Amino acid sequence: MNERYERGLARQAELGGPGATRARAYDALADIAPDLSRLAVEFAYGDIHARPGLDPARRELVVLGVLTALGGVEPQLQAHLETALNVGVRPAELVEAIMQALPYAGFPRVFAAMTVARRVLQSRDLLPVPPP
Amino acid sequence: MNERYERGLARQAELGGPGATRARAYDALADIAPDLSRLAVEFAYGDIHARPGLDPARRELVVLGVLTALGGVEPQLQAHLETALNVGVRPAELVEAIMQALPYAGFPRVFAAMTVARRVLQSRDLLPVPPP
Amino acid sequence: MNERYERGLARQAELGGPGATRARAYDALADIAPDLSRLAVEFAYGDIHARPGLDPARRELVVLGVLTALGGVEPQLQAHLETALNVGVRPAELVEAIMQALPYAGFPRVFAAMTVARRVLQSRDLLPVPPP
Amino acid sequence: MNERYERGLARQAELGGPGATRARAYDALADIAPDLSRLAVEFAYGDIHARPGLDPARRELVVLGVLTALGGVEPQLQAHLETALNVGVRPAELVEAIMQALPYAGFPRVFAAMTVARRVLQSRDLLPVPPP
Amino acid sequence: MNERYERGLARQAELGGPGATRARAYDALADIAPDLSRLAVEFAYGDIHARPGLDPARRELVVLGVLTALGGVEPQLQAHLETALNVGVRPAELVEAIMQALPYAGFPRVFAAMTVARRVLQSRDLLPVPPP
Amino acid sequence: MNERYERGLARQAELGGPGATRARAYDALADIAPDLSRLAVEFAYGDIHARPGLDPARRELVVLGVLTALGGVEPQLQAHLETALNVGVRPAELVEAIMQALPYAGFPRVFAAMTVARRVLQSRDLLPVPPP
Repeated sequence: MNERYERGLARQAELGGPGATRARAYDALADIAPDLSRLAVEFAYGDIHARPGLDPARRELVVLGVLTALGGVEPQLQAHLETALNVGVRPAELVEAIMQALPYAGFPRVFAAMTVARRVLQSRDLLPVPPP
Repeated sequence: MNERYERGLARQAELGGPGATRARAYDALADIAPDLSRLAVEFAYGDIHARPGLDPARRELVVLGVLTALGGVEPQLQAHLETALNVGVRPAELVEAIMQALPYAGFPRVFAAMTVARRVLQSRDLLPVPPP
Repeated sequence: MNERYERGLARQAELGGPGATRARAYDALADIAPDLSRLAVEFAYGDIHARPGLDPARRELVVLGVLTALGGVEPQLQAHLETALNVGVRPAELVEAIMQALPYAGFPRVFAAMTVARRVLQSRDLLPVPPP
Repeated sequence: MNERYERGLARQAELGGPGATRARAYDALADIAPDLSRLAVEFAYGDIHARPGLDPARRELVVLGVLTALGGVEPQLQAHLETALNVGVRPAELVEAIMQALPYAGFPRVFAAMTVARRVLQSRDLLPVPPP
Repeated sequence: MNERYERGLARQAELGGPGATRARAYDALADIAPDLSRLAVEFAYGDIHARPGLDPARRELVVLGVLTALGGVEPQLQAHLETALNVGVRPAELVEAIMQALPYAGFPRVFAAMTVARRVLQSRDLLPVPPP
Repeated sequence: MNERYERGLARQAELGGPGATRARAYDALADIAPDLSRLAVEFAYGDIHARPGLDPARRELVVLGVLTALGGVEPQLQAHLETALNVGVRPAELVEAIMQALPYAGFPRVFAAMTVARRVLQSRDLLPVPPP
């Protein structure tokens, strides 16, 4: 096991573990592309998320913006909403972060992201979200 | 002048003014679609940026994520990088925010966004950016 | 209830009501982001759809073009196909509008949009569509 | 010259000629991919634009929606704004069509499209556009 | 039946038949837009896939790149993964082709494409894929 | 200098050097985000392009498909068209690869990519491209 992979795993652990969503995604591809999950740990976590200079909560807010704009990436959106909660982003802040994408990415992408957020918050018994 | 428009203008002023980039964009369309700039103030700023529950710096990080992922939106990217600096995001944090998009939006979108960031930081004499 | 919201609701009513699809989308997010549905009524309908200068059928054709190109926005596509029928766009015109996206957005986006259109037309007993 | 190509050329002529913008695009690629321009005439115009069942103005409104949403396609946007004017879409309707994309594609894509529209209208001495 | 359509059908047959996935997509839209399937055969296969100058395996690799980047186009991705196998692309090469999109389209699009590839390979009893 | 970076540089050298386009992109960001260029070498080249199991020409064809579909990524498109020529893809094959994106990504993205290809081929005195 190389240094980047270890650093990536360590960072995932600090972020609350890879989480059920992410672990399922990794396992599901083990028999076709085991390197894909390894590279996700090494590059996304070991090389990028583990960088200094921006705290984990702020990193997750950037990622939420990216994923909301991309569209069609529900598994990643779910995983990063879970991570955001793990690193201390409050439910009402998550909702605001998705709302903030409205003028730039439009209503359809925001409705889609909010629908995923609802599922994540519901699974943690965090609904209804109090207004900010 | 309606309440939303006033709230939008006030929020823009708090965020450091509409900024030269944004003001130019608004003026340039005055003879074709004056309502477009008005709606940007009313909706983007009066309805969304002015919402409570997430501080301006975090809002701008979400917007950076969205704009980096969309691609081809340099004027808005420039305007929001300026706003992010205005509300206290440090240059090294801006760079990290754009780096954080790498695993999700890929290198080409990140190179494009970083090129705009370089122009903004250079115009404020903030280069070179010290490593985090 | 403010003026924009009322104007938005009125315009939705003129367009045949919010429709079952849209109403379900709004209800589903009531406990996480009630402002999102309100803003959809205020901004999308009160500020934009209610504008003069372009008739509702033509507005819906623009929206169909946008949604077909975006991809991954089935709920909105379904809602706007329903609205288009409500404001007098004939089924064969709807089909042609989606076909017209082919050279610009490519076959995959058009197949996806046509599949949603088929579901909408079937639910209204409007299949088969007579050739133009 | 085959039947589709002739039908495509005829339809382009009915739409006001290929227009300077489109002709330049075709000529510019003559020494690398002459089939690309031929296929644009055959498929986009001979197979699609020439279809019955939706009038040319409405077809152009769909195309405007698609191109606004795609982003980064200025030459095509310019060509189709010219065509839309040729087939009787009034300047104020063009502006409204682009405004209508706001809730779905967001402000950045709409600002970009409006900037191209401004250039087209200016080149035809159609500015300022009277409010609807 | 015209020459392009025949050429398109012939090319589809050479590529291993339209395949179950593609045939189902065509049939499903027969009562709403029969011309859409016809044009897919004529344009995508008769005009493009049937061109000389690039062998079918290489054409499918380009298509995989396009579809992976677009996102949200699972039916087409599935059909073209099947075609790629039919024309001799080995399973490990398919996996590598999708991996190659990582630095440019990002992890979420690649995870989505790999998930479809897994389904296709599993349906042909080609799992696990031996490492390259 | 780590092993991945060295492997990435070695692979870039095998692919004909980073090329003028890519080198300029790297240099231009040295004072804002030097890690971005390093990670491009390490991840894109050391981790991905250097993988076994798919030859360099085929890898570049996938990348061309991805970049054509993304749109707005001219510097990367130019760099990879140069690389493709370096690893033996013939000009007529490059043209065909871009043409092959037509049914999936549409004409505007293909015109944009072909325009970049024309510039690259012209700079190497490879125009006109003989028909396949």
